Amino acid sequence: MNSDLKKNQQIILLSRPTGWVTPENFKLIESDMPAPAENQVLIRNHYLSLDPYMRGRISDAKSYAQHVNIGDLMVGGAVGEVIESRSSTFNVGDSVLAATGWQLFAAMNADQVTKIDTSRVRASAYLGVLGMPGITAWRGLMEICEPKAGETVVVDAASGAVGSVVGQLAKHLGCHVVGIAGGQEKCRYVVQELGFDACVDHRSSHFADELKAQLPTGIDCLFENVGGSIFETLLTLMNPFGRIALCGMVSEFNQPPHAYRTLRSILVNRLKLQGFIVSDKMDAWPAIRSNLHELVATEKLKFRESVAMGLSSAPTAFVGLLKGENFGKQVVKLT
Amino acid sequence: MNSDLKKNQQIILLSRPTGWVTPENFKLIESDMPAPAENQVLIRNHYLSLDPYMRGRISDAKSYAQHVNIGDLMVGGAVGEVIESRSSTFNVGDSVLAATGWQLFAAMNADQVTKIDTSRVRASAYLGVLGMPGITAWRGLMEICEPKAGETVVVDAASGAVGSVVGQLAKHLGCHVVGIAGGQEKCRYVVQELGFDACVDHRSSHFADELKAQLPTGIDCLFENVGGSIFETLLTLMNPFGRIALCGMVSEFNQPPHAYRTLRSILVNRLKLQGFIVSDKMDAWPAIRSNLHELVATEKLKFRESVAMGLSSAPTAFVGLLKGENFGKQVVKLT
Repeated sequence: MNSDLKKNQQIILLSRPTGWVTPENFKLIESDMPAPAENQVLIRNHYLSLDPYMRGRISDAKSYAQHVNIGDLMVGGAVGEVIESRSSTFNVGDSVLAATGWQLFAAMNADQVTKIDTSRVRASAYLGVLGMPGITAWRGLMEICEPKAGETVVVDAASGAVGSVVGQLAKHLGCHVVGIAGGQEKCRYVVQELGFDACVDHRSSHFADELKAQLPTGIDCLFENVGGSIFETLLTLMNPFGRIALCGMVSEFNQPPHAYRTLRSILVNRLKLQGFIVSDKMDAWPAIRSNLHELVATEKLKFRESVAMGLSSAPTAFVGLLKGENFGKQVVKLT
Repeated sequence: MNSDLKKNQQIILLSRPTGWVTPENFKLIESDMPAPAENQVLIRNHYLSLDPYMRGRISDAKSYAQHVNIGDLMVGGAVGEVIESRSSTFNVGDSVLAATGWQLFAAMNADQVTKIDTSRVRASAYLGVLGMPGITAWRGLMEICEPKAGETVVVDAASGAVGSVVGQLAKHLGCHVVGIAGGQEKCRYVVQELGFDACVDHRSSHFADELKAQLPTGIDCLFENVGGSIFETLLTLMNPFGRIALCGMVSEFNQPPHAYRTLRSILVNRLKLQGFIVSDKMDAWPAIRSNLHELVATEKLKFRESVAMGLSSAPTAFVGLLKGENFGKQVVKLT
């Protein structure tokens, strides 16, 4: 064990973004190697997760979670291996998942670390399809949308870490699934690779018309990741008694709040619109992850990753994620 | 029985309103006395009900119910007595409730007529607190808001037929209840007569500040009747995991759709916002009406009526209702 000879590297928040995030809002620093205390483990991270929710954490606006303060380590999940253990629960060499933040090494309390099974599924999957995004997809779809076979399910950001799971799960339930994504390449992917029935490119100049053409019988379930004018249009296409899981409004991060003029549809169509945050019910995670694990291991649930190389690439990759430049779950490979 | 010697009187829709409804959109006509067919009863109406939902029925906009066509009888509920019966279920003299529309006499199928018990509660109550408005209040509060003792419940149009029941039921459940109403007189009524904890006058020039002052711990349950800028403000005051029953958006009838800029609160606070229409679950009505009847008969649920006199006054009274000029449930006394 020579970890104490090394230095750790971390990315901290240098300044709050105004409007779009830029790589200059972050800074890579060196710090001392963390030393695990009693009941802690020392983790060497292999992959960091980059996720849209992080944009909220570096904002001043009221949100559902603690802000990252200027000078603080950026928050986030990671997978890695235990390289030193002062916990009876973990052995050196264990593959683990933990919210370490953006750094190479982390000392974590054992009860905040999850052992992961990488025998059938690769470790980075636990940041996406088997991690927060996949569980988000499951909860919003199963607990709020509750789709029935034959119903029409729409999801935007359809090729992303959450949307791709939503659509595939809905297909397994026997639904008609229409995705919305940015660009023809992503649309082709969700139809040809993931098996969605259709996908509409929201960058098209005839987006609203193309969307309506794909939804001749309306929408029963909407999994909403984007917000803004796309959501405003989707509201008008909902069927009576439709259900909407409001998971994200990423389009509102960098501009004043959108003005929604189509709320009357909620009354007229007796819709249920429900916001949710996946971390509100952590008790439910193990069972959901187990279900997803089986689907991935048996190739019934496909996923795709955008891999940035090296800790220093994380800020640029994060900016790209917010602009929709990633294609699939965005991770940063550290080793 | 000399009813066949009389003429019936009806109010029909003469033209669709553009913007505010006016009395000139309606016309009083004489017509032949209806003759009940087999399994029908002939009803002499005593009270007509006037309700905000009727504004939607005379509009061209897509809604949850059939439109009234030009020249058609205006729709609506009424209470009256059976004056001729060709049904084994009803006897002459029975007090009944039925959707007869705006007319003095109506021949109705027996299975569309409800016998009412007027021994402890007066007949007109079946148009308000024991009718569609009261059952609307019950369903939205109990099935969507599901308030718990100690939670804060807000209802707008608080002195109206629906709002007054919402607030009183919430008080019986042990909630802190804040009403919103138009004018000091209505506010005094809901606090002093109905027992709300507070009421804010939305006509005040400091409405938003006064509202916030009454809600230091936020809103857990919102029963929304009005929509527009009031609803937009209320959304920002919701507590995490709050529930909103969207019952009406009466403020949107006479103007372009409101642009809501505060939807992010639904995500951040994990709110449930659900639209509903009371007539979607008619099976539930008898049990709910029975609960309400007991509360009214034992004076645990108070109500107030605005009574317009004579069928010809219905159009003017309806316009007043849409402008908030009524005070309590608006009915039209016919006999």
